[in-house]
Amino acid sequence: MAEGLAYQVLCLLREHGPLSRVELADRLAVPRARLLAELTRLTEADRVREAGPAASRGGRRSTLVELSPKHRFGAVDLGATSVRIEVTDRRLDPVAAVEEPVDIRSGPRPVLRVVTELLEKLRAEGAYRQLDGLGVGLPGPVSFRDGVPVSPPIMPGWDGFGVREMLAHEHNCPVVVDNDVNIMAIGEGYGGVARSVDDFLFVKLGTGIGCGIHLGGEVFRGKDGCAGDIGHMQVVAHGPVCACGNTGCLEAVFGGAALARDAVAAARAGRSEPLAARLAAAGTLSAYDVGQAAAAGDATSVALIRAGGAALGGVLASLVSFVNPSMIVIGGGLAGLGHRLLAEVRAVVYGRSLPLATGNLPLVVSELGERAGALGAAKLASDLVFRQS
Amino acid sequence: MAEGLAYQVLCLLREHGPLSRVELADRLAVPRARLLAELTRLTEADRVREAGPAASRGGRRSTLVELSPKHRFGAVDLGATSVRIEVTDRRLDPVAAVEEPVDIRSGPRPVLRVVTELLEKLRAEGAYRQLDGLGVGLPGPVSFRDGVPVSPPIMPGWDGFGVREMLAHEHNCPVVVDNDVNIMAIGEGYGGVARSVDDFLFVKLGTGIGCGIHLGGEVFRGKDGCAGDIGHMQVVAHGPVCACGNTGCLEAVFGGAALARDAVAAARAGRSEPLAARLAAAGTLSAYDVGQAAAAGDATSVALIRAGGAALGGVLASLVSFVNPSMIVIGGGLAGLGHRLLAEVRAVVYGRSLPLATGNLPLVVSELGERAGALGAAKLASDLVFRQS
Repeated sequence: MAEGLAYQVLCLLREHGPLSRVELADRLAVPRARLLAELTRLTEADRVREAGPAASRGGRRSTLVELSPKHRFGAVDLGATSVRIEVTDRRLDPVAAVEEPVDIRSGPRPVLRVVTELLEKLRAEGAYRQLDGLGVGLPGPVSFRDGVPVSPPIMPGWDGFGVREMLAHEHNCPVVVDNDVNIMAIGEGYGGVARSVDDFLFVKLGTGIGCGIHLGGEVFRGKDGCAGDIGHMQVVAHGPVCACGNTGCLEAVFGGAALARDAVAAARAGRSEPLAARLAAAGTLSAYDVGQAAAAGDATSVALIRAGGAALGGVLASLVSFVNPSMIVIGGGLAGLGHRLLAEVRAVVYGRSLPLATGNLPLVVSELGERAGALGAAKLASDLVFRQS
Repeated sequence: MAEGLAYQVLCLLREHGPLSRVELADRLAVPRARLLAELTRLTEADRVREAGPAASRGGRRSTLVELSPKHRFGAVDLGATSVRIEVTDRRLDPVAAVEEPVDIRSGPRPVLRVVTELLEKLRAEGAYRQLDGLGVGLPGPVSFRDGVPVSPPIMPGWDGFGVREMLAHEHNCPVVVDNDVNIMAIGEGYGGVARSVDDFLFVKLGTGIGCGIHLGGEVFRGKDGCAGDIGHMQVVAHGPVCACGNTGCLEAVFGGAALARDAVAAARAGRSEPLAARLAAAGTLSAYDVGQAAAAGDATSVALIRAGGAALGGVLASLVSFVNPSMIVIGGGLAGLGHRLLAEVRAVVYGRSLPLATGNLPLVVSELGERAGALGAAKLASDLVFRQS
């Protein structure tokens, strides 16, 4: 379906800020009269307003138009163990943000109650009076059309739960629900390093590993909403057993959980003094410890990161051959492992993929960091609102 | 870009045959006056014509409209060692076909001279007077926009050669050039087993192995036109050396060339009497011999097919996790290895991919066979002509 004129106008104002009527008519290639009629309608609906005279381009001055400053979008980025919530303004810049631990396994009602309470708290603090729209990312497969999780492996009790319906009712606004990796990919495509690129892959390295597939300017979600599930691609024929029941999955070899497991084993086996010291001090180890120990020169930690990067690189090399993307963006908590990880991934991808596909292929770390998901969720929410305007 | 009304009318008539004006207006949801004006224009351009009164639906009878029967589309499916050429009618059914050996390595001018001679021969035999459009598939990466091969590995001398320009000049019609696997995927999506499916993968098993990626009803070609190059995904860490320089690529393990190599080795090592007999008789072995020997009960040949199917299945399992497609279609010469191959591929894919993605995933063999590529090329050619109408 071709997008309507109102949607196009609102998206342009979201991305560029105030524009003159003349600029809008030029960019959208519509007759001036049709644009003016649409702007009148959108002004009456309180979506846009006049913002004074435009700078002169010679001749009669045009009038600037901008999105109504009352716009507020809610963005909920739910992970396995925490939730990040933002309220953004009309340009999708945050006016308030909050992050809290939450256990996704406690089920939809308790978790969504926390979400609603946090949003109410932000409202009480003056971040918004009424949300125009709400975007939500969940750590599992989602039916984008229906707004419900579909057989999410780490989310007991969530299968088929009406997340969209419940939140729409509680916050009295349109709600859109998607997978957490997809909203990060959308954020990167809208305001991150991939903003000028149509076809890119976004790889989230967290406790698990997932991939957002951005093709032709849109996220591709697959038949059941589980496209991009690269954490269970096999990287070692007889490797470690994965939570999914198979052996040698990427997630069983690399990712936050695997790295923590391997770090503990190395510490206990006496292969790393710094890791052993950290384990003794904290009683547990995480990917963060491995990164810190590696930065301090611990050879075992460096080797763990390089081995993980090689496994990830093997999968990405295959995906480069398959998709022939314009860019690969790496984000999520483990992206903080930094240049050692990136160097290894690049070595494998550039070494294994066909030269034609890697000739101009940037392989970069996200610059949005933890904001990627919330930005993508706010983008989805505003898209939905603008389409209905 | 939204497709124009003329294009939509012509595509409907291509797919359904004669339709009444009332049906056309209903299906396209356009005002009757606008449709009639467009039909008048298309009739004057000799694209459509009236075909008598429609069957009565009560009330005044509508008039049937059909594509002009003079339409002829040329389809050229160039492989590494042979070319198949079809001339089709307005419904893309073949009115004439010819297949000839040709060595793609002899370079663009000699090969395209053969193509033109074969087309001229079909013209002399009465298959057509003038082609309306010509579709061409090449065995390598193609810049779809520019109509030229891009660094094709098995096509020396073809890099950047203006295939589209030369053929358009020689045959005085619009020409469209694509990768051979893509045109097969397009053929399957138009008139094959995947005709009712938007998102599917088409796997060509020939001398090499490639994949056509059909998403949202369109072939996805990637940044450089080399998307779907799955033959060089690694399946064995320290496997056989591939022509590309890496080790353990899918093509180095399976595919027509690898199967022939392994069959000769088995015959020489005394591991298969039937293969040894065939080698002695013909001086060479091919995938066809392995299939015949397996059908006659040769355990070594069965094992070769099963090992190949397992390697292919591993790659497809990864792609299923990544794409979450609605269907996988297997075609190309080796699809003739039949149920033993398919059983092994299915066992690995259904065993390794996540249940959500494989719950309703048909994994089937092409029913179009060798016609897939030509049908896809004719489809592309007619699309191009209809868009310009």
